[in-house]
Amino acid sequence: MIGVFILNELLWLTLGAAAVLLTEILGWLYWRYLGKGSFKSFINKNQKPEGPFKIIHKSQTPTQKIALVDVEGEMWIYSNGEVMFSTTKEEDEYAEVIVHIPMAAAKSVKNVLIIGGGGGITTREALRYEEVESITSVDIDDIMLHYGKNLDRLVEFNKGSLSHRKVRTVIADGRSYVENSLETWDVIIVDLPEPTSKCPSLSRLFTLQFYNQLRDHLNPGGAISIGCSTSNWMPEYMWSIETTLKEAGFFTIPFHHFSVNTGVDWGYILATTLPVEAGDIELKIASDFLTEERLQDILHLPYYLMNWEDEGKVQTDENKVLLEIVKEAYGY
Amino acid sequence: MIGVFILNELLWLTLGAAAVLLTEILGWLYWRYLGKGSFKSFINKNQKPEGPFKIIHKSQTPTQKIALVDVEGEMWIYSNGEVMFSTTKEEDEYAEVIVHIPMAAAKSVKNVLIIGGGGGITTREALRYEEVESITSVDIDDIMLHYGKNLDRLVEFNKGSLSHRKVRTVIADGRSYVENSLETWDVIIVDLPEPTSKCPSLSRLFTLQFYNQLRDHLNPGGAISIGCSTSNWMPEYMWSIETTLKEAGFFTIPFHHFSVNTGVDWGYILATTLPVEAGDIELKIASDFLTEERLQDILHLPYYLMNWEDEGKVQTDENKVLLEIVKEAYGY
Repeated sequence: MIGVFILNELLWLTLGAAAVLLTEILGWLYWRYLGKGSFKSFINKNQKPEGPFKIIHKSQTPTQKIALVDVEGEMWIYSNGEVMFSTTKEEDEYAEVIVHIPMAAAKSVKNVLIIGGGGGITTREALRYEEVESITSVDIDDIMLHYGKNLDRLVEFNKGSLSHRKVRTVIADGRSYVENSLETWDVIIVDLPEPTSKCPSLSRLFTLQFYNQLRDHLNPGGAISIGCSTSNWMPEYMWSIETTLKEAGFFTIPFHHFSVNTGVDWGYILATTLPVEAGDIELKIASDFLTEERLQDILHLPYYLMNWEDEGKVQTDENKVLLEIVKEAYGY
Repeated sequence: MIGVFILNELLWLTLGAAAVLLTEILGWLYWRYLGKGSFKSFINKNQKPEGPFKIIHKSQTPTQKIALVDVEGEMWIYSNGEVMFSTTKEEDEYAEVIVHIPMAAAKSVKNVLIIGGGGGITTREALRYEEVESITSVDIDDIMLHYGKNLDRLVEFNKGSLSHRKVRTVIADGRSYVENSLETWDVIIVDLPEPTSKCPSLSRLFTLQFYNQLRDHLNPGGAISIGCSTSNWMPEYMWSIETTLKEAGFFTIPFHHFSVNTGVDWGYILATTLPVEAGDIELKIASDFLTEERLQDILHLPYYLMNWEDEGKVQTDENKVLLEIVKEAYGY
C-alpha cells in the first residue's frame, strides 16, 4: 500500500500541470455550453447584438437551431445563427411596406395569400383592412408558426393575428401549396429569405415557373409584392426578380425602403397583371410609418438603384441566378 | 548542497502548475503586444475590418495612437481606435460630394480653404478646377498631413495634391487660423469629425461664433460646405448645423449622399451669403461618381430627413448641442 504513494518528482510536476489544465478545460466547457459562451452555435458572429442580450430559449429541430434572445426588451429569433425575425420597429416598417403597397394597388383585397408569414406581423397588417375576408399564411417552418401563435412576446407583437378567425395558417412549401391549390387571391405577398448555399431549395420560390403559377392564382386586378432583400448591397438581386416577373408577363413597379437604423435599403417589386402607374398608387389605410409623404420616397428609386436596371437576369428552375448573386455579395 | 534539491511533493506540484500558467501568460503577452492581438489598443472593436487585415505601422504621439492598416489592398488609418481615413471608394465619393457642390454653387473658385484636409483627397478634387489659384489646407494633425504628403500609398491616392504648387498646408486649429487670417476665400470646405467626449474641443468648430467668422472670410458669391456626419443615425446633428448657419445669416441647402456599401446616409450643408436654388446648381466638372443624375438624388432630401427639419438647435461656444446629440446616438 505504501508503494502506491511513493510518487517521484516528475509525476507530481505533471499532476500540478494537469490540475491547472483540467480546471481551465472545465471552465471553458462551462462557459461554452452553459455559461456566457453558449450562444456561439446559435448566433453567428456578425449577427450578434451590439448591446447586452440574454438567451431565453434554445431548441434544436432536425433542420434548425433556434434561439430566442432578449435584446434590451426586444425579442430576436435566430435560425441557424441568422436573425429570422425580431420584435423591432424595423420589422414593423418592413411589414407595412410589403403589405400596404400591394393592398393599395389591388382592385380588391378580399383574399390574401402570404408566403413566409410565420411571424404573423404581415398578417397583422393585412387584417387591418375591413374588406379582408380571408388570409392564408403559409410557412414551411412549423416552429416559426408555433412561436407566432403561442409565444407571449410574439403574440403581443403580432396582436394574435395568426389565431384570428379570418386567418388560416398552413405548414407547407409555398410553391407546392400554390401548385396544388384551386384557390385564387387578390393580393399575394412573398416574404422569403434569400436563397443561399445553406438553403438552396429556396431558389424554387423565385423562378419564372413559380411566378407563372402565381399569375394563374391571382384574381383580375390583383397585385403581388415580393421582398427583394438588401438592394444597396445586391441591386442585381432586385432587378433579377423584376426581370423574371416581366418574363412571366407581369407589369412591375420596383420600390424600396431605407431602414434608417440599420442602413439597409430594402428592395421590393410590385407585380400586377393590369398596368398600374406608381403615381396612381394611393394608400387605402393610414399607418404610423407608411404615410403619403414616405410613400413618395418609397416609390422613387434613387439613381444608384436605377443604374442597375439593365443588369437583371431571368431566374428559372434550371438557372439559379439569385444564388450566385447572394454568394458574390455575402460569400455564402 | 543535496538538501537544496530535496523538494517535497507539494513544491513539485506547485512548480508544475506554475510552469503551465507561465507558459500561458507569456503566450498571451506575445499575442497581445507582438502577435495578432496587438492591434487591440489601436483599433476599436466596432471599427475592426471584417475581412483579413495587416497592421503596417503603429505609432504613438502625445495625443494619438495611430495605426496604418492594410485591408485587402486598401489602406485604413486609425486614430485612437477610430478610422480617420481610408483609401477606399467611399472616401472618394465623400470627397467628390463635399467639394464639387460648393464649387458648383460658388460664383468664383479661385481661392479655396479646406479645414480638416490632412488626407489630401478633398484637395485633390479641388485641384481639378483649372480656375483654382490657391488652396489652403488646414489640419490640426501634423501626423495626418505628414502621411498625406509622404506615405506612398496615400500620395498615390491623393495624387500628390498636398505637395502641389497651388497648395499650402498649415498645421493649425482651423478656428484660430481663420480668426487670425486676413485672407478671404471663394469656397470653404469644413470636413471635420464629430465632437465627442474624447475630443470635445472640436465643438468650437461648429458654433455660431465660428460660422460668423467664416462669413467674414467668404468672398461675395462664395460658398461653404460642411460635413454633417451620419444623417440617418443623427438627423438632429445635421439640422443643428443648418440652424446655426441660418442664425449666422447664411442661406442653406442641406444635401445628403447614401453610401451604398456602408449603409450610411451622409449629411452636408451648403451655406451661401447670396440666395441659391437647389435646382440652379450645375456641376462645373464631371466626376465618375458625381454625375448630374446622382446630383438630383443628393439634392433631394428623403422624408425621414425632412421630418427632422424643425429639430435643429443653435450651437454656440457656450452651448454644446452637437456633443449631446453625438453622446445620445453613439454613447460617447
